[in-house]
Amino acid sequence: MDYPALQARRADLIRVSLTGTRRGEPAVDYTVNPSLGFPMATGPEGSADPVAHVLPAWDCIAGGMVVNALLAAERHRFRTGRGQVAELSLKDVAAAMMANLGIVGEVVANGVDRAKAGNALYGAYGQDFVLACGRRVMVVGLTDRQWRGLVKVVGLVDEVAALGARLGMDLAQEGNRWLARKEITALFAPWFTARRLDEVGPLFDAAGLTWSVFRSFAEAVTQDPDLSPDNPIFQMLMQPGVGMLPVPGSPVSFSDMARGAAVPAPVLGEHTESILADVLGLGSGQIGRLMDQGVVAQGIRPSRAA
Amino acid sequence: MDYPALQARRADLIRVSLTGTRRGEPAVDYTVNPSLGFPMATGPEGSADPVAHVLPAWDCIAGGMVVNALLAAERHRFRTGRGQVAELSLKDVAAAMMANLGIVGEVVANGVDRAKAGNALYGAYGQDFVLACGRRVMVVGLTDRQWRGLVKVVGLVDEVAALGARLGMDLAQEGNRWLARKEITALFAPWFTARRLDEVGPLFDAAGLTWSVFRSFAEAVTQDPDLSPDNPIFQMLMQPGVGMLPVPGSPVSFSDMARGAAVPAPVLGEHTESILADVLGLGSGQIGRLMDQGVVAQGIRPSRAA
Repeated sequence: MDYPALQARRADLIRVSLTGTRRGEPAVDYTVNPSLGFPMATGPEGSADPVAHVLPAWDCIAGGMVVNALLAAERHRFRTGRGQVAELSLKDVAAAMMANLGIVGEVVANGVDRAKAGNALYGAYGQDFVLACGRRVMVVGLTDRQWRGLVKVVGLVDEVAALGARLGMDLAQEGNRWLARKEITALFAPWFTARRLDEVGPLFDAAGLTWSVFRSFAEAVTQDPDLSPDNPIFQMLMQPGVGMLPVPGSPVSFSDMARGAAVPAPVLGEHTESILADVLGLGSGQIGRLMDQGVVAQGIRPSRAA
Repeated sequence: MDYPALQARRADLIRVSLTGTRRGEPAVDYTVNPSLGFPMATGPEGSADPVAHVLPAWDCIAGGMVVNALLAAERHRFRTGRGQVAELSLKDVAAAMMANLGIVGEVVANGVDRAKAGNALYGAYGQDFVLACGRRVMVVGLTDRQWRGLVKVVGLVDEVAALGARLGMDLAQEGNRWLARKEITALFAPWFTARRLDEVGPLFDAAGLTWSVFRSFAEAVTQDPDLSPDNPIFQMLMQPGVGMLPVPGSPVSFSDMARGAAVPAPVLGEHTESILADVLGLGSGQIGRLMDQGVVAQGIRPSRAA
């Protein structure tokens, strides 16, 4: 069932193939990240221990590229009538993205081997602070607007200007905010440690700041309406064997195409009969014989009650 | 220049719009992650401190979805002749992916608020080990094939069987490997601490294991040929203002479409004249007047020597 054999049956067939490495070796996010350097740049400043992140980002990014490749190949087929093979690998997706993000250039052109910087936003200003109530927030001063808004809300316009003068740095430049991040954080910290979340949240929102409270996954699911049917991309769905839970459709809203409704994940073999009948055109007698012979089986119902 | 105004000029216009949240609020990876819970699930087991990961994964994932949305909208236009608006937000992309990854279901259906698990591979077996030479490796026993291969290479087939018997667990089940990860790691550790990278690497490769050495970004760029022109997706390119560096094209190889050559990033205003002349059809006199009036400017050459 390789491509030439399949193409003999359907000349304009499109096949997209995602492998671990382009040499066909196995690779997963948990191995691609160490090989490229991400865990050594993640975690508390000064630590020498690698920290693996829990989001399987390359799987997600590569999955999106598989869809892109399929749509691009179909677009080509519209124009030429020709099918083709598209191949990509998890490692190459990560290598390309690492270069696109400027990390390769940072090493080659600047001679910089990025060190761990804790939760600081790399290259500008962004930092987490613990509040008087014990909750923790992340505030971002990446763009000029974000930075000026943040300095204004914490009421330290003059103090920041004085800090810039003392350091001989124009803190309107994001790169200087990165270099002076510890001094800035020391200046801001007393404001945060003296205030509760229910005080700073409304101030930040009113100023249109870019900020967030830290939550656990469970806190996010139970507290953030964006993870519930309040968000139009989610709907409550009964997943057999799992129960009722919020399930998303596509996060993209198209003005001329309806968002497809989320459907339960199929159980193993759920579509066997319909594929044999509707796609392969087998009759019920033929399907029955295949089942009796154990060649195919009916859908397996989940053991756990829904 | 909103969509209706633009559509009055071009009826089948496609516009794709990516915002921070779907309400138009600002959001970046550094704030989306805390709000959804990733930093509280990342980092050393037992720690209560959040750890932000350095990969701007939602930017990368959302960028891929923008391309998907554009190709999907163009596909629709091929069939119907109609343009449309496609809208998505960084926060919704992350919320949908978090649910697609099963994290929402884990909370709602299982009542689990995932705790930090260090560098352990979540849900199966995968762990980092420090070798006799001081280098660190990640090994993965996620699939049945990976797990059996790993146990065989470290020569602990009988010991793993005895561990499973002692714990009353079938370690052929990935979920049990997760529950028994600390016992498994204690069993494996002496094998790793007694061996150097130049010993274990060839053994792992010969067995087709899924593993990697940990590198910093600079080590990866200088040691991993996948980040160099040895990898066909990369070519050396002179980037004005930066220098010669490996630059990737698309990580996807199509059999019927050539990979576009990587080109230098444009300097600010580099294409102003050609757009005015070739797209808007202005004559050289008109362009010259716009420049004299300061309405447009010529490309700004980078100050740093290439």
